[in-house]
Amino acid sequence: MAGNTFGQSFRITTAGESHGPGNVVIIDGVPPGIPLEVADLMVDLERRRPGQSKIVTQRKEPDEPEILSGVFEGRTTGTSLAILIRNQDQRSRDYGNIKNLYRPGHADYSFDAKYGFRDYRGGGRSSARETTARVAAGAVAKKIFAEAFGGEVIGYVTQVGHIKAEIPAPQEVTLEQVEKLPNGDANIVRCPDLSAGEKMIELIDECRKAGDSIGGAAEVVAKNIPAGLGEPVFDKIKADFAKALFSLPAVLGVEYGIGFGCVTMRGSEHNDIFTATQNADKPHISTKTNRHGGMLGGITTGMPIVLRAAVKPTSSLPIEQPTVTQSGEEATIQTKGRHDPCLLPRFIPMAEAMIAIVLADHWLRWCGQSRSVSVYGTSQGVDVE
Amino acid sequence: MAGNTFGQSFRITTAGESHGPGNVVIIDGVPPGIPLEVADLMVDLERRRPGQSKIVTQRKEPDEPEILSGVFEGRTTGTSLAILIRNQDQRSRDYGNIKNLYRPGHADYSFDAKYGFRDYRGGGRSSARETTARVAAGAVAKKIFAEAFGGEVIGYVTQVGHIKAEIPAPQEVTLEQVEKLPNGDANIVRCPDLSAGEKMIELIDECRKAGDSIGGAAEVVAKNIPAGLGEPVFDKIKADFAKALFSLPAVLGVEYGIGFGCVTMRGSEHNDIFTATQNADKPHISTKTNRHGGMLGGITTGMPIVLRAAVKPTSSLPIEQPTVTQSGEEATIQTKGRHDPCLLPRFIPMAEAMIAIVLADHWLRWCGQSRSVSVYGTSQGVDVE
Amino acid sequence: MAGNTFGQSFRITTAGESHGPGNVVIIDGVPPGIPLEVADLMVDLERRRPGQSKIVTQRKEPDEPEILSGVFEGRTTGTSLAILIRNQDQRSRDYGNIKNLYRPGHADYSFDAKYGFRDYRGGGRSSARETTARVAAGAVAKKIFAEAFGGEVIGYVTQVGHIKAEIPAPQEVTLEQVEKLPNGDANIVRCPDLSAGEKMIELIDECRKAGDSIGGAAEVVAKNIPAGLGEPVFDKIKADFAKALFSLPAVLGVEYGIGFGCVTMRGSEHNDIFTATQNADKPHISTKTNRHGGMLGGITTGMPIVLRAAVKPTSSLPIEQPTVTQSGEEATIQTKGRHDPCLLPRFIPMAEAMIAIVLADHWLRWCGQSRSVSVYGTSQGVDVE
Amino acid sequence: MAGNTFGQSFRITTAGESHGPGNVVIIDGVPPGIPLEVADLMVDLERRRPGQSKIVTQRKEPDEPEILSGVFEGRTTGTSLAILIRNQDQRSRDYGNIKNLYRPGHADYSFDAKYGFRDYRGGGRSSARETTARVAAGAVAKKIFAEAFGGEVIGYVTQVGHIKAEIPAPQEVTLEQVEKLPNGDANIVRCPDLSAGEKMIELIDECRKAGDSIGGAAEVVAKNIPAGLGEPVFDKIKADFAKALFSLPAVLGVEYGIGFGCVTMRGSEHNDIFTATQNADKPHISTKTNRHGGMLGGITTGMPIVLRAAVKPTSSLPIEQPTVTQSGEEATIQTKGRHDPCLLPRFIPMAEAMIAIVLADHWLRWCGQSRSVSVYGTSQGVDVE
Repeated sequence: MAGNTFGQSFRITTAGESHGPGNVVIIDGVPPGIPLEVADLMVDLERRRPGQSKIVTQRKEPDEPEILSGVFEGRTTGTSLAILIRNQDQRSRDYGNIKNLYRPGHADYSFDAKYGFRDYRGGGRSSARETTARVAAGAVAKKIFAEAFGGEVIGYVTQVGHIKAEIPAPQEVTLEQVEKLPNGDANIVRCPDLSAGEKMIELIDECRKAGDSIGGAAEVVAKNIPAGLGEPVFDKIKADFAKALFSLPAVLGVEYGIGFGCVTMRGSEHNDIFTATQNADKPHISTKTNRHGGMLGGITTGMPIVLRAAVKPTSSLPIEQPTVTQSGEEATIQTKGRHDPCLLPRFIPMAEAMIAIVLADHWLRWCGQSRSVSVYGTSQGVDVE
Repeated sequence: MAGNTFGQSFRITTAGESHGPGNVVIIDGVPPGIPLEVADLMVDLERRRPGQSKIVTQRKEPDEPEILSGVFEGRTTGTSLAILIRNQDQRSRDYGNIKNLYRPGHADYSFDAKYGFRDYRGGGRSSARETTARVAAGAVAKKIFAEAFGGEVIGYVTQVGHIKAEIPAPQEVTLEQVEKLPNGDANIVRCPDLSAGEKMIELIDECRKAGDSIGGAAEVVAKNIPAGLGEPVFDKIKADFAKALFSLPAVLGVEYGIGFGCVTMRGSEHNDIFTATQNADKPHISTKTNRHGGMLGGITTGMPIVLRAAVKPTSSLPIEQPTVTQSGEEATIQTKGRHDPCLLPRFIPMAEAMIAIVLADHWLRWCGQSRSVSVYGTSQGVDVE
Repeated sequence: MAGNTFGQSFRITTAGESHGPGNVVIIDGVPPGIPLEVADLMVDLERRRPGQSKIVTQRKEPDEPEILSGVFEGRTTGTSLAILIRNQDQRSRDYGNIKNLYRPGHADYSFDAKYGFRDYRGGGRSSARETTARVAAGAVAKKIFAEAFGGEVIGYVTQVGHIKAEIPAPQEVTLEQVEKLPNGDANIVRCPDLSAGEKMIELIDECRKAGDSIGGAAEVVAKNIPAGLGEPVFDKIKADFAKALFSLPAVLGVEYGIGFGCVTMRGSEHNDIFTATQNADKPHISTKTNRHGGMLGGITTGMPIVLRAAVKPTSSLPIEQPTVTQSGEEATIQTKGRHDPCLLPRFIPMAEAMIAIVLADHWLRWCGQSRSVSVYGTSQGVDVE
Repeated sequence: MAGNTFGQSFRITTAGESHGPGNVVIIDGVPPGIPLEVADLMVDLERRRPGQSKIVTQRKEPDEPEILSGVFEGRTTGTSLAILIRNQDQRSRDYGNIKNLYRPGHADYSFDAKYGFRDYRGGGRSSARETTARVAAGAVAKKIFAEAFGGEVIGYVTQVGHIKAEIPAPQEVTLEQVEKLPNGDANIVRCPDLSAGEKMIELIDECRKAGDSIGGAAEVVAKNIPAGLGEPVFDKIKADFAKALFSLPAVLGVEYGIGFGCVTMRGSEHNDIFTATQNADKPHISTKTNRHGGMLGGITTGMPIVLRAAVKPTSSLPIEQPTVTQSGEEATIQTKGRHDPCLLPRFIPMAEAMIAIVLADHWLRWCGQSRSVSVYGTSQGVDVE
């Protein structure tokens, strides 16, 4: 009811603030028998981690997760899985000076209106620090469907300011391209169009030096997803993806497939035409184009799922901004904490995690717990068939 | 779990297909003591109804709702409220010829993949006919917050094809402007920019004559909404609004406030600056601009809420389109049923309903059932203070 | 939130009052492809129906259900299934005289304390009339698991007042025994111990003549239930069964297996000892005795599930009782409506329905939607394996 | 869906096993502004702690909780509150010898049937160790309603084997009486009838020496509870109390008020008669007797709530018992871990916690989040009235 739970069959519940002892996620619904260890969680936590490069915040957090429950002898047990990620570089002193001020673009005033007071240290529960818990859960979700049906979720930056990447075939982008340059260095802006990526880095660096920030857009693609996931009415999978992305901080818009581009199209040019290839036993149905982004009627069609999100420029700025105090007096504010000049590079693992969680959730809604058991071949109990 | 329920404290559950006996909604969480009668439901059902004008489908449905429970002596009782809207103009024969074909842009193939078979009459559960139940529930939601805090939700069409309306002040658009022309005639396209509206009607009519359809965009504004609604993490109210709009058929994109426009902005030009006016007892905090669309950190700020949705062109087309059969053979399809050449005019009451439902839900999550009792002043039981 | 929904994967939402237009249930999560028609619902609705015999209320309700959605060409579609049962014999005049009185043993005062006012006609939403919706849903649940794994749920009366039935082998009681006497007449008290049943009928009739009522107990047995249903912590299946039974009107106690008899036992005499029979491929594990009532750790063991409920004597009495008015004045009350002198005979189908709903729910939580598809062999979409 | 969450408006989600790193609970829905510190949690954790006396298990666990989130400057923030209780005295070697055996009365076989394998160390997730998380959450729940309306929940042992306590006035039992003897020593059996308590201790000690265990019963009373809590149909508060108690390990029966005693009663002797006292402004309605245990129609009446539970004898026994292995071979088992010879003394804080959680949940469902704010007087945002 207070909104700290997401999902139904793969259900995550999180707690934790920017400057408290740590962030924790309980995942309810993990099927039994999946190999899982801390290293599986580290990959995406490292991608989300602050301090990776010059274009992200310099806050240092090693982000080492501890699995508190739900894994026995290296495999998930089917019972609730808890992961704790302690905060380490908290520096509460950075925030004391803004205790009574409403930071522009932040939730300070909203929290006061809602709760009557707030944890003012780094945004408390409204800090993007809470996404560590989501990213850890997303790593578990990715592992489930990778094993179950070879599904994969990959995100990347498509735009920073006016600089747009050219991504002719979203479904062909690889994690390798997103993370590494051809020379082996890190692709710090996570844009697979390398020439656009270079310009994005320059622009972000320019904003950073100016004490300012810049917005951008990201695309997430899910591949090898079976047709049939999603529910016909309120839990259309497009609706759950949208809720998942909009639940992330700073997201102001979401679209899938042709998205807002549909506004100016006629039906005859918009509809994707079905086609069939004959397999041994039954036809394989697909569409010739993918303006529908892999979903029709809110249910997956087996085509690649393609989503995009608009991410606003970071609200915290080193330059001075006018604002008011809690009692309504005029004031100015200058954020001295360490903040990303552009949220996009670190937004990628967060967005992937949320899309992965929705996919695992709808897969398990469809298949149940015991199907999952049979996937992993460990059941020795009754035959549920 | 099968996704026919939406909301938590104001929770709607629906059932019904395009060509079954009718559509029904059960609303759980309606506070007791609210005056409610069938006439209250008719206003928006009339706005959603097919056959209103030349630019919408000619299917005739009087859409007369029956309140099955939850109202006694003209007031809501606080127990579950059920509304039944029978289908009347079903004409199943219109659909028999497409039984084995996959209509482009429709959920036919997705349903087969998910369920193994489908009710092929008019899309069954995937038909927009199911939105009658939502619109009826939305009318109840609107009534709740209108009485509780004077809140209002108004939607209108902002774009059809390349024709864009100019709406300089979204918060000033009135229901009167959306529904009526100055001469008293119906504003059949529901665009408050009358000159753009005329061109939209021409374009829609042109598409209709060509056997084609056209996309568009709509904006929904919620006014007089208290600050503090929404939850900090997964149930950010922006996330629930997005889920609500994306759960409607044909929506391919959603944004709020500046939306995708944020991508090219710097923080210094994007942040809305807080300002305060001193009232008798405490300051009233607001922002000078509203790029944040009334929500910060996923919680309302008291500024007008502004959302937009992209709606694809109708998939059903009178002109012939290629497709395949269930067994994968090539075929052509020509939709002979009655369909809207542009979905936007009838999308407005559906979008308003979903936004209203989210607002009522978050209001009741915040205020509980007994608060609502006290709003209407009818409790004679214990004092819960 | 207002508690009109029960279950997760097989989820029912109900609405309706004693004297409104009717009762409706929406069932979310019915697997696709199950043959279903109105006649399937009639069996248990007939068993629940008032006016069946001299020992139950004489209120006449034909209770003919209408399936509003979710069935196409005689099979369930997998989308939400709505059933409407109209009220017919409402006689609101029976209740006008008790409008301002608090009936002893009823929810009149509780409702006023909660809602500030109430629908006083026959108890409104607190009337057992709402169980028609549950019984209809239970019939669907029974059909699901009967087809899926041959499961069966049978209830019967074990005690009325001091008259106790002897039921040496609960798992061997048949529906035939519960419903029919050896001579083909109806077993109107639904007690398979015929000699005790005769005495129960005499006692109930004596209470009826005295203008009084009498309490009793019922037992419900579920057979052919696979091991593995239920969740380890909060959703132990014993906990969900208990919630299901206690959610029925008039239930004051629930126990399973040896129940309250465990209080005086030692562990060495209480524990059921496991035993195994070797099948072709793997051992079949069971227990020699069934004091655990088919559940250990809140999860089914494959042994028969055995539950019992205590049902209080009907609160509405034709004889005069003292009470107070809403404004606290002393008064007397004499119920003139038609009421059961003993609730037990009609409690049986209600209790069976709730147990069936919990079983279908946990089965579908375990197996998901697509497993169910494969059970019924109708999927022609993707192979989910 | 996998059942690790309980409650709606006060919602707890738990994780943790007997021999993993620890147990954690996330509480969603704690109102903001409540003073809370670790010491508040310690009282009941101490009462639940093993090793308190000679009649409980000798496993040593200091059970020191760490508050991970949701508290700032000594007050709850309104965001999710996480509590971690690390396991310390795990001794996995105690359990290695039973890895392939099915312990009689335990969930070993059920878990294998459900999940295909299990964490065999001390029962894993099925161990009563998980109740530490519940007891910590219960302490928070108690604090909420103690401050909000002075509510109190007290449990005590009423029966061990054939020894029954005499408790003439449940609503007058104090925590002091349950915890302390008149001489200041601990009341180790938690029975307020001291003479029965002495005999209970003797009996438990006798069972312990015999390598056996013994069952018993407990009563929980909730006082100063406002009328109006609970929902009319499925979420009757009696149903939620029953689910709460049955979700605890070893509970085989639950009853409230007169409970199973109603079976032999007539309506005329069972109904509690309403009475009224005139206050300044409005009448105070109550009942002369309390056979209804404080609930009518599933909604509280303002009378004391009285519930009882039957708790089976501990299944783990030091004496040898026959059983089978996973592969179905005959074997014997002798539990060498440390176990309670009678579960009742440590069951009391667990039962109180669950009842407290249900009360806080229904209170917050009724009153919402902002009501709670106003209770604690800290809101400086909008006036929600």
